[in-house]
Amino acid sequence: MLLSKLCCERVKDAPQDAKILSHILLARAGYIKQVANGIYSMTMPCQKMSQKIQAIIREEMDACDGQEVLFPVVMPRELWETSGRYTSIGSEMVRFKDRGNRDMLLGMTHEEAAVHLANHTISSYTQLPMMIYQIQTKFRDEARSRGGLIRVREFTMKDAYSFHTTFEDMEEYYYKIHKAYNRIFHRIGLKNFIDVKSDTGMMGGSVAHEFMLLTDVGEDSIVLCNSCDYRANMEVATSIIDKYTCEDAPLQLVDTKEDKTIEDICKRFNVSEKQTAKAVVFAVKGNPEKVIIAFVRGDLEVNEAKLKKAIKQDVVAYEGGACEDVVCGQIGPIGLSDKITVVIDKSLENTKGMIVGANIPNHHYTGFNINRDLKDPQFYDISKTKAGDKCPICGGELRIENGIEIGNIFQLGTKYTKSMGMTVAGPDGQPFNPIMGCYGIGVGRAIASIAQESNDEKGLIIPISIAPWPVHMCVLRQDDPQVNEKAQALYQLLESNNIATLYDDRNCGAGIKFNDADLMGMPIRIVISPKSLANNSIEIMIRKNRETMNVEYDCALETIKKLMETLMEEYK
Amino acid sequence: MLLSKLCCERVKDAPQDAKILSHILLARAGYIKQVANGIYSMTMPCQKMSQKIQAIIREEMDACDGQEVLFPVVMPRELWETSGRYTSIGSEMVRFKDRGNRDMLLGMTHEEAAVHLANHTISSYTQLPMMIYQIQTKFRDEARSRGGLIRVREFTMKDAYSFHTTFEDMEEYYYKIHKAYNRIFHRIGLKNFIDVKSDTGMMGGSVAHEFMLLTDVGEDSIVLCNSCDYRANMEVATSIIDKYTCEDAPLQLVDTKEDKTIEDICKRFNVSEKQTAKAVVFAVKGNPEKVIIAFVRGDLEVNEAKLKKAIKQDVVAYEGGACEDVVCGQIGPIGLSDKITVVIDKSLENTKGMIVGANIPNHHYTGFNINRDLKDPQFYDISKTKAGDKCPICGGELRIENGIEIGNIFQLGTKYTKSMGMTVAGPDGQPFNPIMGCYGIGVGRAIASIAQESNDEKGLIIPISIAPWPVHMCVLRQDDPQVNEKAQALYQLLESNNIATLYDDRNCGAGIKFNDADLMGMPIRIVISPKSLANNSIEIMIRKNRETMNVEYDCALETIKKLMETLMEEYK
Repeated sequence: MLLSKLCCERVKDAPQDAKILSHILLARAGYIKQVANGIYSMTMPCQKMSQKIQAIIREEMDACDGQEVLFPVVMPRELWETSGRYTSIGSEMVRFKDRGNRDMLLGMTHEEAAVHLANHTISSYTQLPMMIYQIQTKFRDEARSRGGLIRVREFTMKDAYSFHTTFEDMEEYYYKIHKAYNRIFHRIGLKNFIDVKSDTGMMGGSVAHEFMLLTDVGEDSIVLCNSCDYRANMEVATSIIDKYTCEDAPLQLVDTKEDKTIEDICKRFNVSEKQTAKAVVFAVKGNPEKVIIAFVRGDLEVNEAKLKKAIKQDVVAYEGGACEDVVCGQIGPIGLSDKITVVIDKSLENTKGMIVGANIPNHHYTGFNINRDLKDPQFYDISKTKAGDKCPICGGELRIENGIEIGNIFQLGTKYTKSMGMTVAGPDGQPFNPIMGCYGIGVGRAIASIAQESNDEKGLIIPISIAPWPVHMCVLRQDDPQVNEKAQALYQLLESNNIATLYDDRNCGAGIKFNDADLMGMPIRIVISPKSLANNSIEIMIRKNRETMNVEYDCALETIKKLMETLMEEYK
Repeated sequence: MLLSKLCCERVKDAPQDAKILSHILLARAGYIKQVANGIYSMTMPCQKMSQKIQAIIREEMDACDGQEVLFPVVMPRELWETSGRYTSIGSEMVRFKDRGNRDMLLGMTHEEAAVHLANHTISSYTQLPMMIYQIQTKFRDEARSRGGLIRVREFTMKDAYSFHTTFEDMEEYYYKIHKAYNRIFHRIGLKNFIDVKSDTGMMGGSVAHEFMLLTDVGEDSIVLCNSCDYRANMEVATSIIDKYTCEDAPLQLVDTKEDKTIEDICKRFNVSEKQTAKAVVFAVKGNPEKVIIAFVRGDLEVNEAKLKKAIKQDVVAYEGGACEDVVCGQIGPIGLSDKITVVIDKSLENTKGMIVGANIPNHHYTGFNINRDLKDPQFYDISKTKAGDKCPICGGELRIENGIEIGNIFQLGTKYTKSMGMTVAGPDGQPFNPIMGCYGIGVGRAIASIAQESNDEKGLIIPISIAPWPVHMCVLRQDDPQVNEKAQALYQLLESNNIATLYDDRNCGAGIKFNDADLMGMPIRIVISPKSLANNSIEIMIRKNRETMNVEYDCALETIKKLMETLMEEYK
């Protein structure tokens, strides 16, 4: 490819809204161009990277006996009503009416379409296990798209769906895909990635894992153990919480004046935060009258994802007004209206001598004994894990890092096959609902992750396994006929040997050419100049470590071939 | 691939709405499954065919120096307002509001996105010519989707956009793509296709060609000359119309009673249809008050596409009521209100002695002399070409055939670069609007066209260049250990030699296996059975001509390799 003809505008300054490195670099190198908020066009180099990533994903999915299919982007309401998700998913799903006034939607995931395709086609357990996947455009109307390709609204995604006879078979396959994902991320050149247990969210099901690129700019918090392998997304992370309890004391109503915060109360009574209970008020999503109060120990925070799971309902922050019983600042577990759902964290199990709100303006109770003062209290794990907490597996110290989600896998169980009425004849002839798993990777997110991780102050460093062109050829003094001739000949030689080469054939200075080569990040840069040709040689530089060598012109092809093989080793 | 695990349900009866052969066969073979009206999922064999077609398209586009990019499916209203098409395109374009209440749309073509990407990136004429293309999902809300993959709402399309400095350069490139299209359709296995001049429709621009598969079930009418190369879509086809004129006579108002049709009038006056003028009433689309009356000679019909072009406005059939001057059955060119736009066909040029409506109930004029009785009449080519008309090039006889559009190319000119303000510095330093061309191929339509053309009473006959698996291996008595062992070994051998094989490993009768192989249409069928193995041989059949040969088991690989090469010859 001639750089002079490439539709890809390199610019000095990134767009104003580009705050994170991957966004800045991809925009500056001209790989992406924003069309609307969270919607991008990709130029040739970016699309080539995307296709190389897709090819690697395909290889690994096919190695897991995956069958590539294609589901539609636009689906009818009826299909999504069979699973109940037409109503359960919110405004992140685009809905519209077609010209026949029928309700349609843009797919953000394709469990319904997968079951629709597999249903009837699969009639016997002998056809299982079976996995179908697609690589297709998806649209998710994110409230806050950001970070270039990190959180977009439109994206290319590989999504796979497997069907099994038994839970054990699904589980075995799930971990096969887990391994395939590790290979995919390694092969496309990601380094600092891990898998973590995660929340199943809107997908449903029981177990799920996310693959995370660890990076400061990640939006997700990941809990990791310093001593063992334990790691989990904050949404599902647990820890051993040291029990804290005081001596038993009689319940006593105390005038606490204007004190509202845990801090105020601790100061007034000169106690640790652990001796208090924190109340956080929520409402059921879409039903602000339905109030939920979550209680955790004063030194802890409520984990919303865990709370949702505990009550099996989606929640939003309480906006006040809906419930007269809520006395902000003095909320406590005693004497709350029956209309309110109370959820108590495990940290409060068997506690005595605690200080809690009294649900009376300006009053708290001291000496609260949870088993004595509440009737049959139930406890749930709804608190947020903190850095320094103890690992639930080994008791070691937990730390927290940020990450970008680069893939996810879910054990769906029978959620969709049951709701959509898909049955298959079992070994005994009896119909059963196949057990499903599903597995996703965002291709654009992968590109952004590589850009985020693999760069230096001069620009991108693209792994050779996914480089649009392995070789970037800078020709200095293109106007010199001898240089031009030698450059053309080498370019033809490389291309005819299937070594895709980006040939900077512009009539411009060496500085501009080198800067563009560094910014665009191809793994191997070669320089042809009058000076090098005087010694009948060319210069070869490895982008990632800037190692430079002079090679005889006639040995260029062989040297580049070998260098490419060596560089590929890392991604095998 | 093991057929026992393939997610692809072959059925005896096609869905009730499947009326044409390609739809019936693709549905019966389990290649497509309808999700909603005009929206399909594709199973693995169909997706594999699609990918092979895409690969051929890519090769040919890259050979024309195309740069593969990716535009978004969802675009903002603002982008489409710059070209004026947000309003000019009707309800076939899906529009919706995103969660931020912004107007968005689903792309059915990407001229706006292409100019958006090229604008700024291309700053100098030295970067031209430049062509960018994508292969992407499009959605077009067809009022009447039909024919399986023939006329769908969601489809995969290759769309390409080229930018040029001069009109001549664009024209030269246009015919380069024209040749590439012929190669593409040949390579994917289409036979009976032609290119025809066509209307530019909503794309705008001047010249356009459609590539058509000639088939009885085609929705388009194509005019072809029996003597020369002339061929055109009915929408733009012209012909030499024999002049017909009578002796001059004075204009005379005649009471024609209840006579309303051309037939009635011809009978009353005992004249040929050619001595009358036919009036057809239209209204401007979206403005029913604005009436248009088109006059053609009595033996001809009005061509709506030509009429639209003549008046540069979209029209619909007149529904009555909007205009008091319209006296149905007696409409004539004399004395019509100034509010009515009158468009007269060339067939009426210089005519005398004609019989026309008088715009007075129950009256006609005889002796109408168009130059004498109308003031400065203008004439346009707005009549429909008929079978038997004379070729406009050589005077030979024209015939009419039906066709399916499989591709189209347009000389857009500066329609989009001008309206969207894209300028580039020319050789003289002055900015100019680049000249554009655009070029489309529907991938699903191509699959349907192949299915429509390439089949027999037993099922599909898939060209080897796009076959999901070149080889379909039927194993009879799979339960016989020796058969099983030999079959497994051959399957492994073929696969390891990159010969993708569909292995029918089911425990079922030969009839079922052969029927499925015929229906699915892979180019080479091999049969392994106890009988053949007794002679240490296998049977090989070529699907398209059912030629059968017995080959020694140990020579199977070599024979199949050679056979594949021979079969490929046809598609080179």
